[in-house]
Amino acid sequence: MKELPIGIFDSGIGGLTVAHAIKKELPYENIIYFGDTKHLPYGEKSAEAIIDFSKNIISFLKRNNTKAIVIACNSASSVAADIIYKKEKKIPIFNVIEPVVNYVSKKCQNSKVGVIGTKATIQSKVYEEKIKKLSLSIKISSLATPLLAPMIEEGFIKEDISSTIIKQYLSNSKLKNINHLILGCTHYPLIYNEIKKFYNSNVNIIDSAKIIAKQISRELHEKNLVKQNNKTKHYFFVSNYTKEFEKSAKFFFKEGIKLEEVNI
Amino acid sequence: MKELPIGIFDSGIGGLTVAHAIKKELPYENIIYFGDTKHLPYGEKSAEAIIDFSKNIISFLKRNNTKAIVIACNSASSVAADIIYKKEKKIPIFNVIEPVVNYVSKKCQNSKVGVIGTKATIQSKVYEEKIKKLSLSIKISSLATPLLAPMIEEGFIKEDISSTIIKQYLSNSKLKNINHLILGCTHYPLIYNEIKKFYNSNVNIIDSAKIIAKQISRELHEKNLVKQNNKTKHYFFVSNYTKEFEKSAKFFFKEGIKLEEVNI
Repeated sequence: MKELPIGIFDSGIGGLTVAHAIKKELPYENIIYFGDTKHLPYGEKSAEAIIDFSKNIISFLKRNNTKAIVIACNSASSVAADIIYKKEKKIPIFNVIEPVVNYVSKKCQNSKVGVIGTKATIQSKVYEEKIKKLSLSIKISSLATPLLAPMIEEGFIKEDISSTIIKQYLSNSKLKNINHLILGCTHYPLIYNEIKKFYNSNVNIIDSAKIIAKQISRELHEKNLVKQNNKTKHYFFVSNYTKEFEKSAKFFFKEGIKLEEVNI
Repeated sequence: MKELPIGIFDSGIGGLTVAHAIKKELPYENIIYFGDTKHLPYGEKSAEAIIDFSKNIISFLKRNNTKAIVIACNSASSVAADIIYKKEKKIPIFNVIEPVVNYVSKKCQNSKVGVIGTKATIQSKVYEEKIKKLSLSIKISSLATPLLAPMIEEGFIKEDISSTIIKQYLSNSKLKNINHLILGCTHYPLIYNEIKKFYNSNVNIIDSAKIIAKQISRELHEKNLVKQNNKTKHYFFVSNYTKEFEKSAKFFFKEGIKLEEVNI
């Protein structure tokens, strides 16, 4: 069981930031990554559609004998995770929201926390509701920032375009006087430095990928599911292959990977 | 036959700019619009995937007795139109590229013409190849501008964000010294004025929606397929319904419409 791979999925390549963080935290693990590029981006789709897509991907990952699954997409974690948990009991399934909620409710007491993410994530109010259940002293304010993910996918980072878009979103009155900012989309770690620069280091930017990877490592250790030998092999699948995606994937994963198309 | 509706489709709501232009040109026609929002945007998907989506939508429109079909999406027109024409012989099928190619090859002799569009459209080189077949005196230069469609869908028009993005794209050396610019995406008519402003009226911006609607009107008149009575009813379908899309649809169609989800 220990030697089996960890399955990770996202609507596209954003989840590769999470896969990368997991690889750093658990370097011996094998990874099977699935990017649902045929339906990308999830952020604008309905909850029903995202639930359907997620169920199909989980079936695919289970057919590939994964010992654990990571929903590495905030939109899917927001709208599909609770439904999936009711159905899937046999293997641990992680989402990208729970670890951040736990972190924030412990570390950000008596402060104002901002959340940015896709429309699907923000409209689900999942961060507000989950954090408020754990800590009433935290004030949460959320803002949908739907242009950030396509901007990052197009490689507009450290440029006029990204600084204008980031400035316009983060200047929104909803995010006034925040002490912490949750990056509620797996694309956003790639603009961590630009966001930090905007706030002139006055706001604590919460790097969710790292927090998620640490929680996964902790739980796999507890469940005695950590792989021991250091021979690793990773597989990267997409539902619609294009050369462009393969190029971007490298940028997200920070090393060369080969994408393979699979029809699920 | 005359009384039957015209079917129009796009990956999302961009094609509503074409539907709107057709309605102005042929005010008595009934329209059945299909937006494939489950797979939106097409611009980043592979040619194979776009061809599959288009075939399914055309089957749906034919089941609804359309007398003509308009592929109101540049990405689908680029990669799927020729394949569809070989298969579909019974009803006229229009695409959004041919009318513009005909217009340009007549009106833009001895000049430099720029084309902007999604990655799928620009990589297909369809404008270059088709225009060069008709006129060798025209110099064509194309640029993929993938952030413009999401920018427009998010309503960033007449703002800092749109002027920065438009400026960055249109300042690209590929578009240097152009005399005409083809808006090679059905979203772009909505930023016609911003683009015109960037060029300070020194470049002729080609409003494809109007040109397309005129050609469709001409051909339907020739084929004696124009509806005569003035009682009209339009239907708008999407493959994935969200409230947000219904709101945006109004903005694209310039009047209130009701979207209905249909699984095809």
